[in-house]
Amino acid sequence: MADAPKANAVVGQSGGPTAVINASLVGVIEEVNKHPEIQNLYGTIHAVAGIVKNEFIDLKRLSAAEMKVLLASPCSALGSSRDKPDQQYCANILDAFKRRDVRYFFYIGGNDSANTLHIINKMAGDAGYELRAFHIPKTIDNDLLVTDHCPGYGSAAKFEAWALVGDDLDNRSLPGVKIDVIMGRHAGFLTAATALGKQRDDDGPHLVYMPERPVSLDKFLADVDRVYKKLGRCVVTASEGICDTDGVTWAEKLAKGVETDAHGNIQLSGTGALADFLAAQVKEKLKIKRIRADTFGYLQRSFPGLQSAVDLAEARQCGRAAVKYAAKYQSGSVAIRRLAGGKDYAVELFRTELASVAERTKSMPDEFINAEGNGVTSAFIEYAMPLAGDLPKTGYLGDCPKV
Amino acid sequence: MADAPKANAVVGQSGGPTAVINASLVGVIEEVNKHPEIQNLYGTIHAVAGIVKNEFIDLKRLSAAEMKVLLASPCSALGSSRDKPDQQYCANILDAFKRRDVRYFFYIGGNDSANTLHIINKMAGDAGYELRAFHIPKTIDNDLLVTDHCPGYGSAAKFEAWALVGDDLDNRSLPGVKIDVIMGRHAGFLTAATALGKQRDDDGPHLVYMPERPVSLDKFLADVDRVYKKLGRCVVTASEGICDTDGVTWAEKLAKGVETDAHGNIQLSGTGALADFLAAQVKEKLKIKRIRADTFGYLQRSFPGLQSAVDLAEARQCGRAAVKYAAKYQSGSVAIRRLAGGKDYAVELFRTELASVAERTKSMPDEFINAEGNGVTSAFIEYAMPLAGDLPKTGYLGDCPKV
Repeated sequence: MADAPKANAVVGQSGGPTAVINASLVGVIEEVNKHPEIQNLYGTIHAVAGIVKNEFIDLKRLSAAEMKVLLASPCSALGSSRDKPDQQYCANILDAFKRRDVRYFFYIGGNDSANTLHIINKMAGDAGYELRAFHIPKTIDNDLLVTDHCPGYGSAAKFEAWALVGDDLDNRSLPGVKIDVIMGRHAGFLTAATALGKQRDDDGPHLVYMPERPVSLDKFLADVDRVYKKLGRCVVTASEGICDTDGVTWAEKLAKGVETDAHGNIQLSGTGALADFLAAQVKEKLKIKRIRADTFGYLQRSFPGLQSAVDLAEARQCGRAAVKYAAKYQSGSVAIRRLAGGKDYAVELFRTELASVAERTKSMPDEFINAEGNGVTSAFIEYAMPLAGDLPKTGYLGDCPKV
Repeated sequence: MADAPKANAVVGQSGGPTAVINASLVGVIEEVNKHPEIQNLYGTIHAVAGIVKNEFIDLKRLSAAEMKVLLASPCSALGSSRDKPDQQYCANILDAFKRRDVRYFFYIGGNDSANTLHIINKMAGDAGYELRAFHIPKTIDNDLLVTDHCPGYGSAAKFEAWALVGDDLDNRSLPGVKIDVIMGRHAGFLTAATALGKQRDDDGPHLVYMPERPVSLDKFLADVDRVYKKLGRCVVTASEGICDTDGVTWAEKLAKGVETDAHGNIQLSGTGALADFLAAQVKEKLKIKRIRADTFGYLQRSFPGLQSAVDLAEARQCGRAAVKYAAKYQSGSVAIRRLAGGKDYAVELFRTELASVAERTKSMPDEFINAEGNGVTSAFIEYAMPLAGDLPKTGYLGDCPKV
């Protein structure tokens, strides 16, 4: 392996924002500042779009105070993009890198971003241009391969857990059926996290539906009916990506004019249609009077002040690790390995190949979903609890002995 | 005025929960414990419903540790109810009070609750039964008369402000039009609070629509078009109660099978229909590609860990004050007066008549709404900022000079 080139670096943030994506950016900046071989550190505004439009800022000028504010700020401080670069787009990126003598590219994003890096890295290799391309994982969906979990997931999981602690108390206050639709197109990790805050035996969510387990409308209604008859109330969380027994998502069945993004994904978030449909079904078929539905929407990934401490630290470490790996290796993706055996939660970072993370996604393993397909297991709770971190302890008096 | 009777007390929580309604309950318990003339303190489970069903718990048995947890817990720990008692229901309540020698009734709720207290108090007076009936104000809508503001509003305002700080950063990350529908049937205070967190000149929300100012679809679309053309993005907040220029709410126009509660109110929350309608209009008429809509729903009143410190303290003080007033007066509602003149925010509590708070509601004063009817004034910011309290400082790098 050749020595690390004396040249410039670009860092960008891609895809949907998270609560800690800026912590990874801060990690990159901090570590770059320790590597004299990296001269300028350019932040690209709006990800790959900023590279081809020549919109860069100088990240070495940030003060310690600015970095501190950035660390706590949700969403992508550099701006993001949903562009999925084709061959020509990637060629334009490479040209832009050559013009600025950029030989380090750090890209914070999901599996699509890893794929973009993979293509550009290969293209640079074919052209004999040394480029070190590193992917820093980021998703709220937690659906990347290889890594134990993704930076961004823990904080989003904390939001879900806290939201349901409050929502369940709201439903105790004014009982009925409450349905919450949670982000997560293919993977149920985020929806599963709604169960993390349960403190009492009869705390909600009482039913948790994830995309990994198809559920028919009849089964869904029978589940709600059973819980409602037992408890006089029922709190349900369902992924926006849940599908019917024929494998078609309910959202697709509901959609008339479906919007798709540049990656061919159907837009599931930013609409209340699925939640309203499920609520209407419960009202019509089960004749329950009080039924409410919420679609949590973009608050799940953008709400300030709810970072998980573990998630924040790991996101920052992943940013630092990418720069360290770039001093030794040609390309890679930063991954997290959970260390077994110890009493406390502990991890170590490692480098994996871009190709092992690119394009494909991970689903919830079977052992995290209950046999009925409508809840999570204790194995999931053990997995996710350290990532989400602290949970609010709450008081409810309705169970006190009557006098 | 007769001496305060040696007898028992009932306390209940009514209507929609808030983040600090339990702080008012804690205030009642703390103060009752200082008044030996009040023997038992019964908490009624599910408000007036618990009184007629004889479902009471003993609140003097709560430990200091339980009180501390309660103080931080959102939603109604005693359970709530939407029942609107008629004359017979009130007579049944009075009978229940007589059976348990209850001569103090503390009721934490909105204007409907004040009205219930007013009816029962009058009924007791007519029957020659001494009953001291006190209303402790609570709403997230901030729409009660007499009081400067309502306990519960400050924390909900904090949620709105924080949510929009994050949502605006999300919209900066991936620009487009974002529409957020906020709770508030008749009063725009909560929607107005979405503007509290603005830090930069071009921060969103860029348009704020409150029920007090009718807006036509054409005007709405022209506003969005103007902002989008100027900034390349537009964040809109709209109250669920916004109405068209004919005075009919947009939600009513959209609703086919409209659900009404026991008070004759149309159900506006718990459905994404209004947000989805507005988004579809923007997409269809303005041909803007990326348009998302969220309906914040019940998280606004139930999310844990987001209490405003001022709101928490005032809610607790209002609970205490009700018990103090009951030692001297026959009935009343606790109200907050803001003290002018000082440099810092300061308030004092006072007693007002139940009739002055019962049934009617308050709207946003004209000086809080801008001339265009699509934003708030600095007078509103000065009014609401001390109630919502601290706001997150955030970093955004897209405005940095390009290199």
